[in-house]
Amino acid sequence: MKRSDAVAEAAITLLAERGMRGLTHRAVDEAAGLPPGSTSNVARTRAALLELTLSRLTELEERVFAEAMPDGGPPGFDLAELLARVLMVQLRDRRRTLARYELALEATRRPELRVIYDRAGRRFRDPAVAVLAAAGSRDPVRHARQLVAFAEGVMFDAIVGAGEEPSPDDLIAGVREILAGMLTGPRPDGG
Amino acid sequence: MKRSDAVAEAAITLLAERGMRGLTHRAVDEAAGLPPGSTSNVARTRAALLELTLSRLTELEERVFAEAMPDGGPPGFDLAELLARVLMVQLRDRRRTLARYELALEATRRPELRVIYDRAGRRFRDPAVAVLAAAGSRDPVRHARQLVAFAEGVMFDAIVGAGEEPSPDDLIAGVREILAGMLTGPRPDGG
Repeated sequence: MKRSDAVAEAAITLLAERGMRGLTHRAVDEAAGLPPGSTSNVARTRAALLELTLSRLTELEERVFAEAMPDGGPPGFDLAELLARVLMVQLRDRRRTLARYELALEATRRPELRVIYDRAGRRFRDPAVAVLAAAGSRDPVRHARQLVAFAEGVMFDAIVGAGEEPSPDDLIAGVREILAGMLTGPRPDGG
Repeated sequence: MKRSDAVAEAAITLLAERGMRGLTHRAVDEAAGLPPGSTSNVARTRAALLELTLSRLTELEERVFAEAMPDGGPPGFDLAELLARVLMVQLRDRRRTLARYELALEATRRPELRVIYDRAGRRFRDPAVAVLAAAGSRDPVRHARQLVAFAEGVMFDAIVGAGEEPSPDDLIAGVREILAGMLTGPRPDGG
């Protein structure tokens, strides 16, 4: 592993376990098992360390995403099952998701981090627009936003919030209903 | 305002503006305009300060919720519009929502805080189950979880994440579709 990757990995673990307060250059050195000063050599400032960590996290999440959804899904795939599968993979990595939330909150206070976070977000959002358009959505941009919000909320609730982690069956049922609501439109009576 | 409320208010502002790292007893004294040591008198430990802050936050959110949704909704109300209205009120208070997210993340590391957070969560979740059952849901507990997850995700995306804040019309349309998907069930072809 490159030294910068080892530093980022240790930072992700620290963020998940101790939060933003637990992330210091010295703690990263220790957690990564590197000599004192190593983290400073890779990322001198706190801002640089946070940016390195978020970039690495994004890279890892993209890899997971690409593995769970190869080429936008196999031919004849069931969209709900595929999306639920991606979500289940995300739910399994509590550490990474907690670190991402810590960095998302920090990004509200650091414009440089915001840029990285939003760029990463688009790499998940743009494919969602394409998938929904292909599935027949009449409003794919808005629907992609809703689908991503739902996925984010399921993760947040299960990992950070007051909710429980849904079973795979519940997750598939939920995604199926979300898609049905968007793709068939509301009932005429507005219910 | 009671002194403990002033302390909690200042702590909420600090959490939103500076995150968990910016919350110290001394910073709360200063932000609240209180003499040094005041925060320590109200909440001696960091744990006590966090618990006081989360309790106050929950109280405020419940008040907002009750105002936006009096008696579970006026007679003949449109459920989607009502829920979208509650969400819009929440979206308006960025400060409080950011502080809640900071505390939610901290709660993953502090069991005492977890108890308060989850208890508060149930006070929003239980009414959602009742509302969905009344609206004809065949699986109100699961559906309430989905609806709350969606609401949480919309807030997270708009306030912390890479998403934009939805317009009121988009929000109503979104909630209507979510409800339609849950209450009419998926199409037979699984789309």
